[in-house]
Amino acid sequence: MGKGEETRERVAAQAAALFNVHGYAGTSMSAIMEATGLEKGGIYRHFASKEQLALAAFDYAASQVRRRFAEGLAGKAHAADRLVAFLEVFRGYARRPPLHGGCPVLNTAVESDDTNPLLRARAGAVIEEWRALIESTVRDGIARHEIRPEVDGARLALFLIATMEGAVMLTRLLGDPAPLEYAYEHLRQHIESAVRQPALDAPGG
Amino acid sequence: MGKGEETRERVAAQAAALFNVHGYAGTSMSAIMEATGLEKGGIYRHFASKEQLALAAFDYAASQVRRRFAEGLAGKAHAADRLVAFLEVFRGYARRPPLHGGCPVLNTAVESDDTNPLLRARAGAVIEEWRALIESTVRDGIARHEIRPEVDGARLALFLIATMEGAVMLTRLLGDPAPLEYAYEHLRQHIESAVRQPALDAPGG
Repeated sequence: MGKGEETRERVAAQAAALFNVHGYAGTSMSAIMEATGLEKGGIYRHFASKEQLALAAFDYAASQVRRRFAEGLAGKAHAADRLVAFLEVFRGYARRPPLHGGCPVLNTAVESDDTNPLLRARAGAVIEEWRALIESTVRDGIARHEIRPEVDGARLALFLIATMEGAVMLTRLLGDPAPLEYAYEHLRQHIESAVRQPALDAPGG
Repeated sequence: MGKGEETRERVAAQAAALFNVHGYAGTSMSAIMEATGLEKGGIYRHFASKEQLALAAFDYAASQVRRRFAEGLAGKAHAADRLVAFLEVFRGYARRPPLHGGCPVLNTAVESDDTNPLLRARAGAVIEEWRALIESTVRDGIARHEIRPEVDGARLALFLIATMEGAVMLTRLLGDPAPLEYAYEHLRQHIESAVRQPALDAPGG
């Protein structure tokens, strides 16, 4: 990575933290200048506009989110265990969000839905990645007799994502981990009782 | 209502619509002047600051939300039917949100959680109202043998609110009513199968 590219990456990361706390509209260029220690011209040398910086910052934030999910799912082979691991990543946001300010997908989705089509598309793309991950996990799990054949992966995906993101919102709003704990516990039980295929050849079965 | 009070109410309502679409930080005083047809001095005659206007606007938005829930629950006597009606109100947000721009409680919660303690407290108070409504519905329902005695009203409340608010976020982000439909359907089935007390004296029972 050249020095210019390094600076670009650093500015995107520092801006991502500001945007995730204060919102895109709530973060001024002067706040970004202060956080990065760069003059306005120095920032505009790397990004054509605040909008371009916002997109690069979201890409950085999304990479942090992706890393969390990759770490959480690493080593989980059974499809039902992978679904529970997906929930556990969100549960961990109560103590340690992927970025200061909470979930950048939730924050960006809510701010951009009516106002910023490019950011909205970026947030939507992460949701689509999660949806594809859960759908393929369910599809492969059905093929391997790990998931009950009647499970609808598309429905399950949206239900899991909605519940955990809503719980992130409540946990941050109320300053209380209970919403994330309850959501996790309910969905985990749902996966164990209605999604995981009971083993046919269990000892004594 | 005097003329001054009428103007104050109208400005709060018009500002609420702008804030709910663009966010508090994303709404300039000049946008509010344009929407209300008032000069800056005319707005500041009624509100000491943009912050005061934001609080009054949230109070207006919350009153619209409260009206939706009051309408949705009107005439529902059975505790389990009241819980389903609570979900139906959120489900209706897909076609007709209480305010242009979606759910003002979700939007305000996400924008204010790190940055604006007064707005955050206002959004938190609506969540507490919903939580108290569901808890008392469950408590009364258990006493009247309409709800299973093992149901934990506090847990159920946070789970229902998290899921439906997360589904509102997804439905708006993706421009697709499916997340709200799936969330509603899953939670309704949960209420019917695990929350509603089966009638003991059903015909043939």
